[in-house]
Amino acid sequence: MGDPGEIVTAFIVAVEAKDLDTALSLVTEDVSYENVPIAPIVGKQAMRATLDMFLKSATQVEWRMLRQVVSGNVVINERLDRFQIGDGWLELPIAGFFEVTDGGLISVWRDYFDMATYTRQFTALTSPK
Amino acid sequence: MGDPGEIVTAFIVAVEAKDLDTALSLVTEDVSYENVPIAPIVGKQAMRATLDMFLKSATQVEWRMLRQVVSGNVVINERLDRFQIGDGWLELPIAGFFEVTDGGLISVWRDYFDMATYTRQFTALTSPK
Repeated sequence: MGDPGEIVTAFIVAVEAKDLDTALSLVTEDVSYENVPIAPIVGKQAMRATLDMFLKSATQVEWRMLRQVVSGNVVINERLDRFQIGDGWLELPIAGFFEVTDGGLISVWRDYFDMATYTRQFTALTSPK
Repeated sequence: MGDPGEIVTAFIVAVEAKDLDTALSLVTEDVSYENVPIAPIVGKQAMRATLDMFLKSATQVEWRMLRQVVSGNVVINERLDRFQIGDGWLELPIAGFFEVTDGGLISVWRDYFDMATYTRQFTALTSPK
């Protein structure tokens, strides 16, 4: 049903295009979406709401894949998630862990990152000049 | 010269035992030790000073390995790094990426984590009761 690494790559590409319909077609109904510094989010609709929140303030989204390793049904990547906000770019280093079902759907997505690295840049980019 | 996964495991076990001589015997002279939220540290002696700082306040250190994946010379793990401080435990979820040379030494160690998750607990555990 598709290579786990290719499924994760397709998911990331869809998020970059802000194409949440395609992205969500690649996850299970009960997907666990875990931004480690905050509580896990469970289910497709909760994931859509959260992704929408992260993406809506960005005019452009580019998640650079620095490394991706596949081991069985586990896909791990190091990314630099970039968001164009106003006239600048927010850049967030991320370690992502994905679990893909035999049916080819993402059931777990766990991102490790430093929350303050995100909020510090977000505040700077959205403050009045 | 030893399996990269076993070398990283031996390194972690030495850190848990606060045996920095053994830990540092497993890294290159110019090792890059990167706690992603802060600047990379280069070289064995700088790594020793930083590890010493992290370890000295803990009476016991336990780094639980939740998952470890090896791909060529790259070793990736998810850990729960635990530090006993005073009468409590500080717990920090970590994603670690290691690069191991053909000679069996760790040349890169990059940990992704949320700094505030660390500092919040450290402050609570070291504040006067």
